[in-house]
Amino acid sequence: MNNNKGNANDPMQNALILQKPVRSMTMSPEFFPDFDPNRGATGIARVEDVDFEKMPLLPAIVQDASTGEVLTLAYMNREALARTLELKQTVFWSRSRGELWHKGATSGHFQDVVSIHLDCDGDALLILVHPHGPACHTGAETCFYRRLQP
Amino acid sequence: MNNNKGNANDPMQNALILQKPVRSMTMSPEFFPDFDPNRGATGIARVEDVDFEKMPLLPAIVQDASTGEVLTLAYMNREALARTLELKQTVFWSRSRGELWHKGATSGHFQDVVSIHLDCDGDALLILVHPHGPACHTGAETCFYRRLQP
Repeated sequence: MNNNKGNANDPMQNALILQKPVRSMTMSPEFFPDFDPNRGATGIARVEDVDFEKMPLLPAIVQDASTGEVLTLAYMNREALARTLELKQTVFWSRSRGELWHKGATSGHFQDVVSIHLDCDGDALLILVHPHGPACHTGAETCFYRRLQP
Repeated sequence: MNNNKGNANDPMQNALILQKPVRSMTMSPEFFPDFDPNRGATGIARVEDVDFEKMPLLPAIVQDASTGEVLTLAYMNREALARTLELKQTVFWSRSRGELWHKGATSGHFQDVVSIHLDCDGDALLILVHPHGPACHTGAETCFYRRLQP
């Protein structure tokens, strides 16, 4: 599922692909080296193994494939996953807007999909990506920018 | 939130703490060096910032604090988070059993909590841990051991 082809009809997207990834001011240092997105994968799954019957809206963890940083938790329904596989960029279901949401369509901060892993129960996804920019709508690199202080 | 104290009344737990972490046969190499669990944290959150009103069962991403590997997606209600903070080990809400679930209570594969991050919307948690053993009930190091083949 390598994706660096972009969309020939979308100059914005192509421009972003040619740039180095945009990094926000809040970016943390690269604390992980590049790693094999196959790591930990001892099996394969098919789209039909994803249990949309049990969970029509599946949580999808988005992780930076280069740094290992967890960026976002978003949700996918069957159509969002299908569109993600088609575009090789993340497409979620926006619970607040009640519609499909191609991440980056507004901000330009697309997330190119490197790999998708399914969990043991078939009801959660882990998506490794190369982000074009910060994941968070606040401009933070990751949505998990607040550390809990008990 | 460092936790290596263990529980003086629980020899099983102490034994595990004194050992090197148990690793499953499916363990991937350590593809990330140790890293600062403060990485990416530009702010703080308090327990009252967690939006249990909106999401009585919050998804909690569990990530290995040493390797960066995402291990599990589980769920926490208010009580599970409170118990997690108290024990400094992960406690989830088991949706299948309908009860609190101290991870490792049966398997010995406790997860010592290093840090907890809250996302921008206050409705998802990222928990960095030092695991005592494989995260998955299948014996796999991570629950996300299946790579999706479209």
